[in-house]
Amino acid sequence: MTTYQRIVLASRPTAEVQADNFRLETKDIPAITDGQLLVRNQYLSLDPYMRGRMSANKSYAAPQALDETMIGGTVGVVLESKHPKFAVGDTVVGTLGWTEVAVSDGTMLRKVDTTHIPASAYLGAVGMPGMTAWYGLNQIMAPKAGETVVVSAASGAVGSVVGQLAKLKGCRVVGIAGGAEKCRYVVEELGFDACVDYKAGNLEADLAAATPEGIDAIFENVGGAIFDAALARTNAFGRVAVCGWIAGYNGEPTPLDNARFILTNRLTVRGFIVSEQPEFWPQGLAELGTLVATGKLKFRESVADGLASAPEAFIGLLKGRNFGKQLVKLS
Amino acid sequence: MTTYQRIVLASRPTAEVQADNFRLETKDIPAITDGQLLVRNQYLSLDPYMRGRMSANKSYAAPQALDETMIGGTVGVVLESKHPKFAVGDTVVGTLGWTEVAVSDGTMLRKVDTTHIPASAYLGAVGMPGMTAWYGLNQIMAPKAGETVVVSAASGAVGSVVGQLAKLKGCRVVGIAGGAEKCRYVVEELGFDACVDYKAGNLEADLAAATPEGIDAIFENVGGAIFDAALARTNAFGRVAVCGWIAGYNGEPTPLDNARFILTNRLTVRGFIVSEQPEFWPQGLAELGTLVATGKLKFRESVADGLASAPEAFIGLLKGRNFGKQLVKLS
Repeated sequence: MTTYQRIVLASRPTAEVQADNFRLETKDIPAITDGQLLVRNQYLSLDPYMRGRMSANKSYAAPQALDETMIGGTVGVVLESKHPKFAVGDTVVGTLGWTEVAVSDGTMLRKVDTTHIPASAYLGAVGMPGMTAWYGLNQIMAPKAGETVVVSAASGAVGSVVGQLAKLKGCRVVGIAGGAEKCRYVVEELGFDACVDYKAGNLEADLAAATPEGIDAIFENVGGAIFDAALARTNAFGRVAVCGWIAGYNGEPTPLDNARFILTNRLTVRGFIVSEQPEFWPQGLAELGTLVATGKLKFRESVADGLASAPEAFIGLLKGRNFGKQLVKLS
Repeated sequence: MTTYQRIVLASRPTAEVQADNFRLETKDIPAITDGQLLVRNQYLSLDPYMRGRMSANKSYAAPQALDETMIGGTVGVVLESKHPKFAVGDTVVGTLGWTEVAVSDGTMLRKVDTTHIPASAYLGAVGMPGMTAWYGLNQIMAPKAGETVVVSAASGAVGSVVGQLAKLKGCRVVGIAGGAEKCRYVVEELGFDACVDYKAGNLEADLAAATPEGIDAIFENVGGAIFDAALARTNAFGRVAVCGWIAGYNGEPTPLDNARFILTNRLTVRGFIVSEQPEFWPQGLAELGTLVATGKLKFRESVADGLASAPEAFIGLLKGRNFGKQLVKLS
């Protein structure tokens, strides 16, 4: 193997992401120098936040540069090492991007144990999505046993963990997801108490029926009309963790009609990005790892095959076509 | 004096409050029994929250009952007492309603000292409006010196205190108010750094010019388009105290177009009602009282004369016609 493939951002989307916003390139595998290591990526993680980075708009992170490797979380195996902390054969998790092979100086790279936890889970339930769920639930929503928790995008990599953690705390957990199949999975496989299919066309009434005692805490991944429906059901002193706003990722207006409930129900609404909370990661990852290793935290993966399939898989993710954590298998 | 006048809620408003939603009645002054006292009210406080109570809608408080004395904060003097804690001549603050005379059993009534603080201030800067400002600023916004704070309804009883307290903390303080006269007062008399006149028609551009370093904390009294303009200027980790939503008090839709900034700027947005935070009142009132008594906290009053003028004064308050704390002088 002397060459590898990578995907760069070729152009910025004007509205919906198109396949030609990306470009597949073949590159020569570089030689590494002292302090570096060479990683062969096994899995690439696809996540909604990447849509934000593709735009040049002001956001919480610098935009993805054009003609550079697309940003992305990865898990892979060390092929060569001139770095004292990493050895050939180590499994490493990092943010090496949409590429089969990458050189790293070890920054933001960590070695993981795959004895009891599959490598891919470090990109999902025991990685950034799992930590996002853990932080929002524990540090913002802080639900008590018996309270009602609502989670949008409930079958996704983040939402599925939020709901299962809330069930372990003794909450009534209601998901919101798109389609009967995802809702069935959320209830039957993940153990949520109920799931509302927003595509069925009766969101308000169905959510009211599923939350007879109102809503004490919301984990919001979508924004717009779905958030509005949940806001209208909040109880006094409800807490809302705002984690995603998928409804507006293509620049669509996403007006909120029910924001006044923030006042009338004295809600606390907090937006967050878990990468800004590094002090919580050791505790959170330890808890999530134990739950996955002991089978108490389930997850589902949609795995696209080969780097070239990443753009279509990513476009599908933004449209809700994935089912569970979206990965791309690279080797 | 054997009779007194009171105002009851005659009917609920269907949209804007009308004068005939109220009814003036003449009543006989009752005899008091053991444990009671009789108060002659000097001032009645008019506050936006009363609009919410006039509706039968679900809200944080029970609706005002029809044909009963309208709810309202009062300061008055004890005329007769068979209560061990109150003596004739004491000045007392309470919630005795839109009435010249009231019987009380002492519940929620407190004796105040008018040596250095005028009686009417106990309904404003050293009362519920002042505490609302104090709590929102200190417990939710918690601004640091040098940060930019924005306050809507800046010339009002609450907003004027928020801004002055923030100036004492070394913040850059920008008000939003309706009309050039109110804006001039906010800057020249209260010492805000700038004030944006939302009626001038350039809210977004004018607010941007007044907040060149963005906004770190918002005290929101209005909601809707005014809140939207401030949200668009927030900095990362901004804090928002949501205290009022005047824009929607008559049931108008008040969509928020910029709610997505809660996520992109990782804001904390909290609605609150200061009466639910009794543990903070002793400290807050002590600080506010000292600031008023020493002339460091200024306030302005609009005083309507006589109980019969209360309905029109209240309607004016909801339309922003008042200038500073709206009171009705009763005796």
